[in-house]
Amino acid sequence: MKNLFVVIAALMIMAPYTKSEAQPVDQKKPNIIIIFTDDQGYGDLSSYGSPNIRTPHLDKMASEGQKWTNFYAAASVCTPSRAGLLTGRYPVRSGMASNVSRVLFPDSNGGLPEREITIAEQLKEAGYQTAAIGKWHLGHREQYLPTNHGFDTYYGIPYSNDMDPVAGKPPYWDYADEPIPFEYYNVPLMRNTEIIERPADQNTITHRYTQESISFIEENRDQPFFLFLAHSLPHIPLFVSEKFRGHSDAGLYGDVIEEIDHGVGQIRRKLEELEIADQTLVVFTSDNGPWLVFRTHGGSAGMLRAGKGMTWEGGMRVPAIFWWPGTIEPKIVTDIGSSLDIFPTVSFLAGVDVQDDRVVDGVNLTPVLLGEGESSRKEMLFYRGATLYAARKGDFKAHFIIEGAYGQFEEKQVLETPLLFDLREDPGEKYNVAHEHPEILREIEKMVEEHKETLVEVEDQLAKRESN
Amino acid sequence: MKNLFVVIAALMIMAPYTKSEAQPVDQKKPNIIIIFTDDQGYGDLSSYGSPNIRTPHLDKMASEGQKWTNFYAAASVCTPSRAGLLTGRYPVRSGMASNVSRVLFPDSNGGLPEREITIAEQLKEAGYQTAAIGKWHLGHREQYLPTNHGFDTYYGIPYSNDMDPVAGKPPYWDYADEPIPFEYYNVPLMRNTEIIERPADQNTITHRYTQESISFIEENRDQPFFLFLAHSLPHIPLFVSEKFRGHSDAGLYGDVIEEIDHGVGQIRRKLEELEIADQTLVVFTSDNGPWLVFRTHGGSAGMLRAGKGMTWEGGMRVPAIFWWPGTIEPKIVTDIGSSLDIFPTVSFLAGVDVQDDRVVDGVNLTPVLLGEGESSRKEMLFYRGATLYAARKGDFKAHFIIEGAYGQFEEKQVLETPLLFDLREDPGEKYNVAHEHPEILREIEKMVEEHKETLVEVEDQLAKRESN
Repeated sequence: MKNLFVVIAALMIMAPYTKSEAQPVDQKKPNIIIIFTDDQGYGDLSSYGSPNIRTPHLDKMASEGQKWTNFYAAASVCTPSRAGLLTGRYPVRSGMASNVSRVLFPDSNGGLPEREITIAEQLKEAGYQTAAIGKWHLGHREQYLPTNHGFDTYYGIPYSNDMDPVAGKPPYWDYADEPIPFEYYNVPLMRNTEIIERPADQNTITHRYTQESISFIEENRDQPFFLFLAHSLPHIPLFVSEKFRGHSDAGLYGDVIEEIDHGVGQIRRKLEELEIADQTLVVFTSDNGPWLVFRTHGGSAGMLRAGKGMTWEGGMRVPAIFWWPGTIEPKIVTDIGSSLDIFPTVSFLAGVDVQDDRVVDGVNLTPVLLGEGESSRKEMLFYRGATLYAARKGDFKAHFIIEGAYGQFEEKQVLETPLLFDLREDPGEKYNVAHEHPEILREIEKMVEEHKETLVEVEDQLAKRESN
Repeated sequence: MKNLFVVIAALMIMAPYTKSEAQPVDQKKPNIIIIFTDDQGYGDLSSYGSPNIRTPHLDKMASEGQKWTNFYAAASVCTPSRAGLLTGRYPVRSGMASNVSRVLFPDSNGGLPEREITIAEQLKEAGYQTAAIGKWHLGHREQYLPTNHGFDTYYGIPYSNDMDPVAGKPPYWDYADEPIPFEYYNVPLMRNTEIIERPADQNTITHRYTQESISFIEENRDQPFFLFLAHSLPHIPLFVSEKFRGHSDAGLYGDVIEEIDHGVGQIRRKLEELEIADQTLVVFTSDNGPWLVFRTHGGSAGMLRAGKGMTWEGGMRVPAIFWWPGTIEPKIVTDIGSSLDIFPTVSFLAGVDVQDDRVVDGVNLTPVLLGEGESSRKEMLFYRGATLYAARKGDFKAHFIIEGAYGQFEEKQVLETPLLFDLREDPGEKYNVAHEHPEILREIEKMVEEHKETLVEVEDQLAKRESN
């Protein structure tokens, strides 16, 4: 599986095309850090337009590196989005997208199947040390935990922070603006396969994830490492350290984002202090759009339409920052990208072949990161559960089915004539142009048919629940 | 009126409080450049969240200077907004806001009254050279032109670029995406009080405004100057130089913005080349929100509600960048500010007293610019024509009257119970909290009553039309 020589040779062939000979691609395998937030919307960083939330550390990385503005999560909710990120495959291929249950719950028995290859497993092939810190949500039964999916260590909560609610407490949306007692949610905090704290103290959890990350970086300073830091916030219920209460000009939600941003700054400082920043690719993105039913606790998709759970842009287009000082030059990238692409990209950078016994939907974004070419991703599919609702090809996106957010009870509509939007001029999906461009609709329909032919029947992992 | 000694003394008293003794306030009168765009929305710069428009020069100034995120135009349409900017007074005080005609038209006989004092007149008192370049729209009869309002020179179009349409052409919204022949609009280009070109070639107009600005800066490099560069675009009809067609990833509207941004970069480079950047305050802002009825030609208010012509945030909250290298330190400012505040601010910086024989609504923002204190603006009034529709006090904004955009024919509704929004947590004005906070509504109502007591009857300048 490892084929480092070929990759290094490929990088050497590419070298003459780099803009600056002083900054060739580092032939050492770069460290990889993925910082993944939960339910943070497209508009929730100052560099992505938030008027009230200040994220100076992420903004600085966005201005020093690449800020992507047409970047998609693999799905519009947690479990399938994470499956897509870690495998590079649409979650419907792994059984991690379902029309029975939208995500995994505490009574779920399924999880990411062993046959799936994660980024961590890829990078282990290249000798990386690997750690998962934060929310997992790809199966909390032991065989599905991070340590059985290529991660040397795990520290975090195994599913969403709103699961395991303690009986008899009012629903979250009835609470006041103040953070609630963390004891209202009986969420476990795990180290590797053991529960070490229950309920997890979620007030300090963001801070603790950051500290764990810093320790991991320090310990592995002399070898290539992969850190998957998946913050469990700003998913509701919102919690924040004492130090960050009232820190933002946007209420509790903003406080949470600003604490995460502060942690990003601490991680960056550590990389610089250890003089390994220029050997480290940091990717920041979110698992899906804002959970709008929680109003001011749910974040904002900015000018994009709708949010979490939906296949409008606001549900899946997310902030994405790629930072690698000395290698990635500052740029705003409007090419299409997806969290699906991280798997093949970091595999390439680490010199590991992608298995050819399965369909991998991700593309290698290295040429864009190096300023050598455009993204080879020209399309994106928008699934809700295991059903394809919409598809983008080039500038145009067709919606075949539309439906409101989970919990909003807006009726599902299978459209006789799909809606069509030109996302180039109309990223807010306001102006349907289906009647002006029937030929584009047909092209997209053809693309979808071809995609569907690549699908094979797999077991629905999310349907495996004690209650089913 | 000039009282430079007192101001310099005040600046010297302030000096010990500056953060860095190496960067005291320059005791020379700074050059002032106001770059004012037309109908550009809150979300139409990359640094304010646009996914498709790239504005690297403005973004750089925003990151090196102050990026304001709660900054308001004085009104939601051209004429009153400009009157407010140049006088520091709500336009209802000068007769430049009207319930009869929303702006000045080619058959208008009115204009900014002689008794009004403009920023240019203020700065003339301090010995500045002054130039207006671009769209005026405060009266095109000779007595109202810039050269009769304190500007030494004028170069530009006297009213909006969509006025004087040539008879027999289809309305703008029926055109294709390609720029139309500029000859469809018989708009005059003026130098001082003479028409020098008609119809103005609007394809090259942005470029020519920039070149005129650079010439003015070069000529006045050795003395304090005030440049009011009021781009006539991106107001529809959209026009762009050959070089910028297809330049953006957002269609024609984006191309226009990117050409303006390019011009900002050229102006900045000239200031640096002449070594006067550190003696120059550059303010960038827009006259009102995006004109949404023109769809993809109308820009975006980002996550804010509605657009031009309306008293929702999208109609009046605009991007605002203050750049003054060596004096203004980088900051995202969430304090409330308004284009009304530029008049007292630059008067203070130039050492000119503000006349006390009239109400000036603007406040001096210098303490915020210097990092010495917070904005003394704690409120903002939202007029439509000469009628107050909404008011903000602190974090809260009340809407007393709501109405759709001009041309949308949505009925005006005088609300029995006003709407109330907490703009801190809900800048998108989605969640009415009037019933939770009746006491705040009462406070705002009291503030509005007090404001109304300061109003005096003036002649309606916009009602003076040949057709009336």
